[in-house]
Amino acid sequence: MGLKDWLVPQDKLFFDLFEEQAETVNKAANHLYYMVQNFDDVKNKCHKMKTYEHKGDDITHSIYQLLNRSFITPIEPEEISRLASGLDDIIDHIDDTARQMYFYDLDETDEYMIELTRLILAQSEELQKAIYGIRDLKHPKVIEEHCIEINRLENLADDVLGHAIQELFTTDDALRIIKRKDIYETLEIATDKCEEVANVLGDIAIRHS
Amino acid sequence: MGLKDWLVPQDKLFFDLFEEQAETVNKAANHLYYMVQNFDDVKNKCHKMKTYEHKGDDITHSIYQLLNRSFITPIEPEEISRLASGLDDIIDHIDDTARQMYFYDLDETDEYMIELTRLILAQSEELQKAIYGIRDLKHPKVIEEHCIEINRLENLADDVLGHAIQELFTTDDALRIIKRKDIYETLEIATDKCEEVANVLGDIAIRHS
Amino acid sequence: MGLKDWLVPQDKLFFDLFEEQAETVNKAANHLYYMVQNFDDVKNKCHKMKTYEHKGDDITHSIYQLLNRSFITPIEPEEISRLASGLDDIIDHIDDTARQMYFYDLDETDEYMIELTRLILAQSEELQKAIYGIRDLKHPKVIEEHCIEINRLENLADDVLGHAIQELFTTDDALRIIKRKDIYETLEIATDKCEEVANVLGDIAIRHS
Repeated sequence: MGLKDWLVPQDKLFFDLFEEQAETVNKAANHLYYMVQNFDDVKNKCHKMKTYEHKGDDITHSIYQLLNRSFITPIEPEEISRLASGLDDIIDHIDDTARQMYFYDLDETDEYMIELTRLILAQSEELQKAIYGIRDLKHPKVIEEHCIEINRLENLADDVLGHAIQELFTTDDALRIIKRKDIYETLEIATDKCEEVANVLGDIAIRHS
Repeated sequence: MGLKDWLVPQDKLFFDLFEEQAETVNKAANHLYYMVQNFDDVKNKCHKMKTYEHKGDDITHSIYQLLNRSFITPIEPEEISRLASGLDDIIDHIDDTARQMYFYDLDETDEYMIELTRLILAQSEELQKAIYGIRDLKHPKVIEEHCIEINRLENLADDVLGHAIQELFTTDDALRIIKRKDIYETLEIATDKCEEVANVLGDIAIRHS
Repeated sequence: MGLKDWLVPQDKLFFDLFEEQAETVNKAANHLYYMVQNFDDVKNKCHKMKTYEHKGDDITHSIYQLLNRSFITPIEPEEISRLASGLDDIIDHIDDTARQMYFYDLDETDEYMIELTRLILAQSEELQKAIYGIRDLKHPKVIEEHCIEINRLENLADDVLGHAIQELFTTDDALRIIKRKDIYETLEIATDKCEEVANVLGDIAIRHS
């Protein structure tokens, strides 16, 4: 970047990168949803998930590079940093679940895994809309509505996790419990991470309205 | 809020909310202590715990709303944010333990669970006193003494966890180990979260003294 | 500290403390590497590890005290805080692994534990060099190279963890799985914590170059 770029606000670039990252989250969530519903050839499906994880890492890196070289930012540097690391966390947890399913040699998925993944996918769609909204902050109410929906979906995931764990402990198959508890929990953490990003977006909407 | 409220420091409101939240932490800790000592009707005791968790969420939300709309804050915005999320984390972990006891279908509590909960309760009482102290920062030494005590209690919890885990692994009942290890660990994390809040309070005491 | 100390930048002191902390991380990693290769007298080896953990706590405390009393800092207060807590996290996770090996009554270590520990040790050596580089920021490229190497080592640890978990689940010994999965995961988190510190150091290198 030349001196001119340094002084000119790089707003457009930031928003482009955040939208690209939100799309990557959505693609990873979509792939996981496909995977839990078509649970075969798990190794290759994991490999494909890894490409989204790497893509996410690259975009995160680009955002931080841009941040480190920007004098003026469209939203607070702290907000950019929280958004970037939050979005990356979501992808990492989606990828972690896929890896757990593979490495734990899970025999088959179940309705709880499918439902938790469906909630992550729905959250990722809301996130895309909310992130699209921060490009021009004329409609903060719209952003807030998407954030409220993301929080609602996280609460649903919490309930699904509760029921999944409760049913799991009606059996006494320790191995099954070890495997499935981890997978359910990682899925639920992914919905928490979506909520964290929604909270950052909600703060941005309020502060810049 | 009118323009006048925007410009007038909302100090009193912030401190009121933090004291209310510290009280909620204390009530949740008290309820858990009652629960581990009277371990029956677990489902209803969990439901009651959930009311504290919701109360905690509401207060956290109010603090952030006030923060987002305040121009002048009595302590740094960063400190307010860390305090608010730290206190909420404590309540969440207390609630998580109650839920684990219920969903894991735990048959009975043990001396380690009771002792860890007693430590959380003692920490919550120290937290209330320390938070009362930040309203007027004339006695930073008093705040620091409560924080030192909270750290001491966390160290005790660490030792209790060690002994609990060590005894657990003298048996080879995998199911028992899975259930109790999670519950012990969640209780110990709650004491860590109390320590984190104490560290923030200690920083505030030093910085504003 | 007198008024003069307050106004004079305490640069040298900060860098001395960070170098001392990096050395403590390295000593803890070295001790763990010795422990996993000579897995006897585990209780005493754990006790010795605890001395490094306490040392780490003391240095962390000194850094925060210096930060709270400093008007002018050589790098951003936020960066100092992230570095200090990041380095402390690494030591805590190294200590956690040692404690797990002891409290879980682990019968013997395995090649995966040794390999993961070797990677932590290698990361700690790179960290020492990178931290030495921030004292005078004339060679940011050198710092960045060490950070890239730390990230590379973390990626290797990720693969080792994957293989370790995968092999673990080829057995159906639930107790063995519970113990070793926790130990592998704690070791891998230690490599993540090294990467987090490397990311902070990389940011410092870029921002001050």
